[in-house]
Amino acid sequence: MSKLRVESFTISLDGFGAGPDQDLQNPLGVGGTALHGWAFSTRTFQKNVFGKDAGATEGVDETFAQRGFTNVGAWILGRNMFGPVRGPWPDESWRGWWGENPVYQVPVFVLTHHARAPLVMQGGTTFYFVTEGPTVALERAREAAGGKDVRVGGGVNVIQQYLRLRAIDEMHLAIAPVLLGAGERLFEGVNMPELGYACTRHERSALATHVVFTRT
Amino acid sequence: MSKLRVESFTISLDGFGAGPDQDLQNPLGVGGTALHGWAFSTRTFQKNVFGKDAGATEGVDETFAQRGFTNVGAWILGRNMFGPVRGPWPDESWRGWWGENPVYQVPVFVLTHHARAPLVMQGGTTFYFVTEGPTVALERAREAAGGKDVRVGGGVNVIQQYLRLRAIDEMHLAIAPVLLGAGERLFEGVNMPELGYACTRHERSALATHVVFTRT
Repeated sequence: MSKLRVESFTISLDGFGAGPDQDLQNPLGVGGTALHGWAFSTRTFQKNVFGKDAGATEGVDETFAQRGFTNVGAWILGRNMFGPVRGPWPDESWRGWWGENPVYQVPVFVLTHHARAPLVMQGGTTFYFVTEGPTVALERAREAAGGKDVRVGGGVNVIQQYLRLRAIDEMHLAIAPVLLGAGERLFEGVNMPELGYACTRHERSALATHVVFTRT
Repeated sequence: MSKLRVESFTISLDGFGAGPDQDLQNPLGVGGTALHGWAFSTRTFQKNVFGKDAGATEGVDETFAQRGFTNVGAWILGRNMFGPVRGPWPDESWRGWWGENPVYQVPVFVLTHHARAPLVMQGGTTFYFVTEGPTVALERAREAAGGKDVRVGGGVNVIQQYLRLRAIDEMHLAIAPVLLGAGERLFEGVNMPELGYACTRHERSALATHVVFTRT
């Protein structure tokens, strides 16, 4: 059965999934890059995101990074994760943060209030812009995934929407030893036990605490 | 120089320092006891709190539990941590959660809006009830500590008050692999980097992630 999964989503010790004031220079908000030290340390991330032959090939961090790219047939992203443009698209020039050959290599469904034609990239990634809300985006992603799982990339707001719909089957969260002070708080207004989630895995590296939440 | 320290304060993965609905049966709020698995596992906690010769004598958890009782000359507690009684004291019958020989064994200053005579317990613990606010409580605690450090026991609201005053020098926080869903959120309305705090230590056991924040 195809699952809806959150993977490698990282929050700070004070609970924020991204720093404040996202812009072109700060795709993860101010201070957000410090969150991802554990991911940057891994072979999977270095290879998939930067195209580099670097990073650790084993260890807890690499295990979780790898897991995030295993059996994923489609992605769902919030519009702010796709880029810094807000409101109606002024033109077609913004093509994502990831260059012409994005890391996804499968269909990616971007939740937005503003329609836009699908964007076919190199390497198998196509961005589809969905204006009909999270449930329709999930239906389309499941169909596109062809039996594989669907991964919700983020951001905080999109994850919260799917948690509240009780649609997420598994969520891997990393907690990085940094403080952000402000930004979007993942668990704001989301009562996890009430929604049926429990922590079912708890591992640690020098760079992060890794937990997995499963819907019971 | 005498420090103001928070020690062994534990929050859940979703950021709560206590469960909701504290009462006589649930001194830590509903679900709050699950937070403290790491502490219950230690010799220091078993001995100091339960008077038992049990628990681990080494390991990360024990190291942090021990640290919490080292060089502490006085404590500050919020009134809700002292007991479940709210509003004016109906009588003198409530004498704390800890029996006639409480774990503290030094002067303890309880922040409250309702005056009460000092309560002399066995073993060196005296509870002083301070109605003049956190700054006066801290002055009195420092004086009573005789050069040793002052430990803020909690709860969340009291820690937040001292953080906002930039009065806390060091805060050891444990993050337990449990979800509470509701309760008091430690970092609600407290911007730690803005207040000058950074994470300066990050260690892990099977039962908790331990971090130390230091004011720079």
